[in-house]
Amino acid sequence: MERREFLLKGAAITTGAAAATTLAAPAIAQGRVEMAIVSTWPRDFPGLGVSAQRVAARIGELTEGRINVTYFAAGEKVGAFDSLDEVAAGNSQAYIAADYYWKGKHPAWAYFTAVPFGFTYAEMDAWMKFGGGRELHEEVAGGFGIHPIQVGNTGVQMGGWFNKEINSGDDFKGLKMRIPGLGGDVLAKLGASPVSLPGGQIYENLVSGAIDATEWVGPYNDYFLKFYEAAKYYYFPGMHEPGSQLTMGCNASWWGGLTDTDRNIITAACMEENAMQMAETNARNGEYLTKLINDHGVVLKEFNDETYDAMYGAAEEVFEETRGHSELAAKVHDAFVGFRADVGRWMLAAESSYLRQRNRVTGVKL
Amino acid sequence: MERREFLLKGAAITTGAAAATTLAAPAIAQGRVEMAIVSTWPRDFPGLGVSAQRVAARIGELTEGRINVTYFAAGEKVGAFDSLDEVAAGNSQAYIAADYYWKGKHPAWAYFTAVPFGFTYAEMDAWMKFGGGRELHEEVAGGFGIHPIQVGNTGVQMGGWFNKEINSGDDFKGLKMRIPGLGGDVLAKLGASPVSLPGGQIYENLVSGAIDATEWVGPYNDYFLKFYEAAKYYYFPGMHEPGSQLTMGCNASWWGGLTDTDRNIITAACMEENAMQMAETNARNGEYLTKLINDHGVVLKEFNDETYDAMYGAAEEVFEETRGHSELAAKVHDAFVGFRADVGRWMLAAESSYLRQRNRVTGVKL
Repeated sequence: MERREFLLKGAAITTGAAAATTLAAPAIAQGRVEMAIVSTWPRDFPGLGVSAQRVAARIGELTEGRINVTYFAAGEKVGAFDSLDEVAAGNSQAYIAADYYWKGKHPAWAYFTAVPFGFTYAEMDAWMKFGGGRELHEEVAGGFGIHPIQVGNTGVQMGGWFNKEINSGDDFKGLKMRIPGLGGDVLAKLGASPVSLPGGQIYENLVSGAIDATEWVGPYNDYFLKFYEAAKYYYFPGMHEPGSQLTMGCNASWWGGLTDTDRNIITAACMEENAMQMAETNARNGEYLTKLINDHGVVLKEFNDETYDAMYGAAEEVFEETRGHSELAAKVHDAFVGFRADVGRWMLAAESSYLRQRNRVTGVKL
Repeated sequence: MERREFLLKGAAITTGAAAATTLAAPAIAQGRVEMAIVSTWPRDFPGLGVSAQRVAARIGELTEGRINVTYFAAGEKVGAFDSLDEVAAGNSQAYIAADYYWKGKHPAWAYFTAVPFGFTYAEMDAWMKFGGGRELHEEVAGGFGIHPIQVGNTGVQMGGWFNKEINSGDDFKGLKMRIPGLGGDVLAKLGASPVSLPGGQIYENLVSGAIDATEWVGPYNDYFLKFYEAAKYYYFPGMHEPGSQLTMGCNASWWGGLTDTDRNIITAACMEENAMQMAETNARNGEYLTKLINDHGVVLKEFNDETYDAMYGAAEEVFEETRGHSELAAKVHDAFVGFRADVGRWMLAAESSYLRQRNRVTGVKL
């Protein structure tokens, strides 16, 4: 049954019951639940770390501490990239991470964080909640003993920091650039040498010339890493991560043993944070973009059509390889492509057309 | 338990609850909170009504019925437009509505639903949560004894259904169009005669020629009202409501008497639904836009720059009048304009530029 049909049906049952929509259930959840969360972000890391800590605190708050959350930042219990194994083994109950970190285990994980030429935040949220995305995420994660829940999004990423102009796909040839994941694979097809470096090591490598270019997230997050001291051009829009979603991955058998109420409370807290992190990022990016330009002389540049065409051609090759991995990878990819066409058409009439006109008439410029 | 399973179960419980309301409240119901919600939507109304019923059920679900929600659709307890008075008087504990319905009481209410040339969903959410919007909303609503919480969003609206082409501001002269609120005021400046009609009466007026044109929401919502039988051109993007937010308005003294935990649970449920409704609308709009074009021969048209310039000029006059109402109206308007410039700059580098390129290279067309 389609979700919408169900909801209509479910609602129809309540017709006539203009009275209570709920009734006190007899059994109040009284059991204390221990929940250790390991995250992939340093403690108090602006944006990502703060968001993970906020949702951890929120679960305690919504249950008056009955769900007793113990939060471990990256390295405090296990290393960031060991989080999936930690939770799958049942040593901790949940991780907070970008699921594309596990794409070495299965490439389909990447679709639930971000893939090149993929979904914006609003599109991803529509796919996850009403377009079949959640069910596919549960299928992929279920294969690793994980129950996944959306828990954040950092939105459209900037294209990166460069010291030379990028005017075509050829300009990536020989470029050593920090860009992980499928985005890195795309630039490799164009002749770049993609490098994976944790956030704390990018600046020194950029200053020393060990890398020529880097991307990270967007104005707010990038500001604190001071890339503006070592690179001149700040390119947009990034094709590689147009709306990076974060996941709370719960140990599936622990999840299965919770009461319905506890599962609902954890889910609601994660959904609240999913939108909260996006709101924070969008609110800060405008302010920090202005700071970067006005206070630090950063030169904003837009990738031209020729460059975008080249990157898209390369992405299509990367996706063909991803599809070839397995039946499940092909299924996820094809579902993604189908929804992208559908929601993309709507976005063309909506956000895309409206923002162009609204910004034009109000005189907003970059 | 899956959400959909829950809803089935919840619906079943509800049926029993209708009978149970005649019984005295159980003596052991310690901490039980009664919460009557009056909404401005008809029962089971696709999109808006279903969303309001979903969040009402969710609050019960998250508290195992300890917060005992009784939901009344429009007209079941009070008329839709009497909802604010009903809650302010303490006869019900909360309403679910578009707060611009109360702009006759104070024009600043409109800014927390949607105003012409205003925020998209992502921008509104950033403003509300991290840009000072929530505090202003609380100030305006507080003056009426209401504590407001975001509870939904229907996104960018289409520009409307017309039987003639609109190529400049002059083409609105003499046009009788169903378009309420500040959007109607804008078109009145251009010589149109804006009319306010509830959803159920628009179709007959359009067929009979009593009105020449109408707007409603977007492809999904408009589809069911069959405007395609009576109007030929479907224009985008609408300038009048680029991201209409819905509000749960709670009686402020009732809200103040709740425990922190209950306030947090209600807030989390509303925030979850705020994103849920937007996701549902975006997911359905793509599908229904395709249906309208392919199955019903609807002709999509984009407002040109000349028309947008004229509408913006008229909007500036309307806003000047709104600012003149009071110090509070001016304060809210100026905060809105300031944040729009800031977040608009970011959106130009992000959603706006990215969607243009992504849709171009993937061949998405209207």
